[in-house]
Amino acid sequence: MPEIRQNLVTKDWVIIATERAKRPEDFKKREKQKIELPEYESTCPFCPGNEKEMSPDETLRIEKNGKWQVRIIPNKFPALSKTGERIRTVDGIKRKLTGIGLHEVVIETPLHNLTTALLPLEDVRNIIKSYKMRYNEMLKDKRIEMIIIFKNHGEAAGTSLIHPHSQIVATPVVPAQVRERFNDAQKYFDENFECVHCKILSEELKDGSRLVFETKHFVAFIPYAALSPFHLWIYPKRHCSSFGDITEDEISDFAVNLQTTLKKYYYGLDDPDFNYVIRSAPTDLKNLDFFHWYLSIVPRITKTAGFELGSGMFINSSLPENDAKFLRDIKI
Amino acid sequence: MPEIRQNLVTKDWVIIATERAKRPEDFKKREKQKIELPEYESTCPFCPGNEKEMSPDETLRIEKNGKWQVRIIPNKFPALSKTGERIRTVDGIKRKLTGIGLHEVVIETPLHNLTTALLPLEDVRNIIKSYKMRYNEMLKDKRIEMIIIFKNHGEAAGTSLIHPHSQIVATPVVPAQVRERFNDAQKYFDENFECVHCKILSEELKDGSRLVFETKHFVAFIPYAALSPFHLWIYPKRHCSSFGDITEDEISDFAVNLQTTLKKYYYGLDDPDFNYVIRSAPTDLKNLDFFHWYLSIVPRITKTAGFELGSGMFINSSLPENDAKFLRDIKI
Repeated sequence: MPEIRQNLVTKDWVIIATERAKRPEDFKKREKQKIELPEYESTCPFCPGNEKEMSPDETLRIEKNGKWQVRIIPNKFPALSKTGERIRTVDGIKRKLTGIGLHEVVIETPLHNLTTALLPLEDVRNIIKSYKMRYNEMLKDKRIEMIIIFKNHGEAAGTSLIHPHSQIVATPVVPAQVRERFNDAQKYFDENFECVHCKILSEELKDGSRLVFETKHFVAFIPYAALSPFHLWIYPKRHCSSFGDITEDEISDFAVNLQTTLKKYYYGLDDPDFNYVIRSAPTDLKNLDFFHWYLSIVPRITKTAGFELGSGMFINSSLPENDAKFLRDIKI
Repeated sequence: MPEIRQNLVTKDWVIIATERAKRPEDFKKREKQKIELPEYESTCPFCPGNEKEMSPDETLRIEKNGKWQVRIIPNKFPALSKTGERIRTVDGIKRKLTGIGLHEVVIETPLHNLTTALLPLEDVRNIIKSYKMRYNEMLKDKRIEMIIIFKNHGEAAGTSLIHPHSQIVATPVVPAQVRERFNDAQKYFDENFECVHCKILSEELKDGSRLVFETKHFVAFIPYAALSPFHLWIYPKRHCSSFGDITEDEISDFAVNLQTTLKKYYYGLDDPDFNYVIRSAPTDLKNLDFFHWYLSIVPRITKTAGFELGSGMFINSSLPENDAKFLRDIKI
């Protein structure tokens, strides 16, 4: 008998269709596309040497051994315009806002053919450090209400450029979905006198069956109502609502946790395409008791179809406890 | 300057990134995979002759010229179990429900190599008729709260079987997303004394710039805040909250509207992969003043990435008015 599990945070229902379940090994890439990539590609706008000709002015640079290791630049085809005012207009059913905001690209390494799982640990630390620095800089822009840091790895995850990179989009609105989750988390706090995320974290640590990897400050686990196979959350243990408040000590620890988790995917599932996103509080809200920032990883090894689009419910063909055990057992 | 448009029903924001805009022609399939398919495939579980051996007992059949034209059968690998009771359990953060419900497949034609755009109109009418019959039959099951009728066309839309088919899933819960939209629609009604969908429909008819195709009883249009290129809604003109209440006259007209719209996709965008879904009211609610059933089509010609996953906001690289004009101008 399948189970329908409810996500305590979002109230979303997920059908855990155990009768359709595959073994974790079945999610490995069918056709290994082991194309050997070069370290440098002359036509790549992110490779060293192409900085001036092909990419606009950088907003941040972290150096290593006298050369850049991380560069952040404005997206050449930004979804939002950097300049302009935030103006709302209503005309009958047509409600709109000027598309202002920031859209930047984080070039994670000078090497064209690497990925987070394979970088030196120090480089991963620098990537997270660069996220924090730009996050806190963007916070100062009064037009911005939300900052979304995310990575698209591989074609199925929506990227067109191979060179390792992530993105930061700062929007002049709080997305409806984010606001709803916030309202729900606040209600949970009002009713239970505790943060729903802290509650989840303590229960997951006690239960243990969905844990993947624990470090001093972070816990990687498969959520009880995971939306899809190997969907995973990394929670900071310290209650904190804004990613921008991550400490130096936590950055180092987060780098270990994130990279180890990504290594487990890389070796266990043969470098699957994935997205990750940092879910942090809207920028106008500080030190919230009821919300906890975290990172969510979604491997793109299955496809969403009409059922998901039409209901917002998901069918997960994999048992979260099995996925967690599989990843836990992969030793790096 | 890009625009951020708000969907009046869902309150979702969509970034209309005009600077990234492509021409409609650019969305055509890059590599034409014109594989000639046979009318009959001996290994296909939906082809005539394979009924007994390969597919479980049918729940509905519509005949034409003494042979079946539409068959509905239980899904061989159902996401939900047909038998069992609806039992809720809570254990700390673990909230679940027995995975009971119905999951059926609508085999739309005996011919392996056709698609809705190319079927005789009578066959499309029979498909819609079969949806209505099963919908109203499933309504009688007291364990069911929601019935979702949808179609996955093509690999990018999540289907693995080529033979033309759609699916019906009846769930023992109202999905959180559906409930939120309902609450919002009810609030809109309370504040404005009218159905938000009726309002949208009358404004779209007046405006005209996003209309694609109008028949006696139905209107196909690109929503003002379309989530992705060529995202389209077909609304019935008569206010009605349940798809199950569609009349015979409306079924005939809906068949014309749906097929013509799908033909415009087929010829204009070179048979793109797509999902469609019928959004109807939860089954316990009848004759609602504030909700209107409709059909939503999402062509799968772009990919959602980390930004969409992490915010619920979408970036649409296509201007809804341009998409509407492009489809409007395709004469069938």
